[in-house]
Amino acid sequence: MTRLTYSTSMSLDGFVAGVDQSRENPLGVNGMLLHEWLHVLAVWRKEAGLDGGVTNASSAVVEAEDINRGAIIMGRNMFGGGPGPWSADPWNGWWGDNPPFHLPVFVLTHHARARLDMQGGTSFTFVTDGLEAALDLAKGAANGQDVAVAGGASVAKQYIAAGLIDEIRIHLVPVFLGEGVRLFEDPALAEAKLTQVSVIEAPEVTHVTYRVVR
Amino acid sequence: MTRLTYSTSMSLDGFVAGVDQSRENPLGVNGMLLHEWLHVLAVWRKEAGLDGGVTNASSAVVEAEDINRGAIIMGRNMFGGGPGPWSADPWNGWWGDNPPFHLPVFVLTHHARARLDMQGGTSFTFVTDGLEAALDLAKGAANGQDVAVAGGASVAKQYIAAGLIDEIRIHLVPVFLGEGVRLFEDPALAEAKLTQVSVIEAPEVTHVTYRVVR
Repeated sequence: MTRLTYSTSMSLDGFVAGVDQSRENPLGVNGMLLHEWLHVLAVWRKEAGLDGGVTNASSAVVEAEDINRGAIIMGRNMFGGGPGPWSADPWNGWWGDNPPFHLPVFVLTHHARARLDMQGGTSFTFVTDGLEAALDLAKGAANGQDVAVAGGASVAKQYIAAGLIDEIRIHLVPVFLGEGVRLFEDPALAEAKLTQVSVIEAPEVTHVTYRVVR
Repeated sequence: MTRLTYSTSMSLDGFVAGVDQSRENPLGVNGMLLHEWLHVLAVWRKEAGLDGGVTNASSAVVEAEDINRGAIIMGRNMFGGGPGPWSADPWNGWWGDNPPFHLPVFVLTHHARARLDMQGGTSFTFVTDGLEAALDLAKGAANGQDVAVAGGASVAKQYIAAGLIDEIRIHLVPVFLGEGVRLFEDPALAEAKLTQVSVIEAPEVTHVTYRVVR
């Protein structure tokens, strides 16, 4: 059965990005600290076209996510580009000609745009009719595998608040950002019941998986 | 060497108590959910004078904290009683005649009060000259064992912000409170560097220990 998953690195104080996010610094001040555990891994570096890296207890976590994922949903900010019509900002996103997803990606936006087919199997389909429409399209493309909400935080929050996420994986990082984009700050979250599914200790990160019970 | 530790249960959304705390409901709405993992343990129930309970991976975590602890610091609200002079509210706290601490406890308050010696080895010493004075007194009483900041959240935040905590243990609970008393929300926290020391998976809780690096 296709599940909708959300996996994110989070600081101990609950932030998924720092303050002052910009096109030059999409993760905000110190936001890159949240992903150091990932960026040192050989498995991640290979996906990103980089040499070297290490293998540790996090490697299997990342590989399992890659293997089970059949399609991706993201917000327009995570794809790249600010608000407003695409004609004012005809940019193909952060991710270069060969994005690291290698999967169908569905981008939530208020503005229609033709599908982009990139190198390496990544496509970007722009969805203007909301969360559930994007989920239906992604499920159709996922061939029975999981659909992953990739972010950003605002899209993830909308899916969680709508009760559509089946599994949340938190990569809890021993960092205090102090301020930034807080992931969980909605009183409506109290409606969601969680069960702890698994915990994996790895160097400078703790991977915890939760199932959302309805 | 005596270390200053802070150990707390925290919801996945970062709360250590719910909203609407009161003398009748000191943990606030749904705050008891944060401690269910603890209250089912035989080791905790025995300390509290209760029968029964289970033994699981959390038991050793609680036992290790008990064994290493030589003194406790807490705020006046956690001891019991509202603001203002003690003469207006001559109450001996939440904890009954035989409190579950069995150790010297130092209570931060703005109002002087004579020391209370309770049954079972618990004493309450009231400290009016601040965080560092309470820490010095507690270290003196701890005989080389750890001093534990027991809470509440406001006292814990002050010790963390002052850079006085050596080790933070988070018992991360698969619960969303939605709103309440948030533990980590201070931009100054970004000054503190953390190292992940250990991770223990247990039923419906993840125990993570961090060292604070100066």
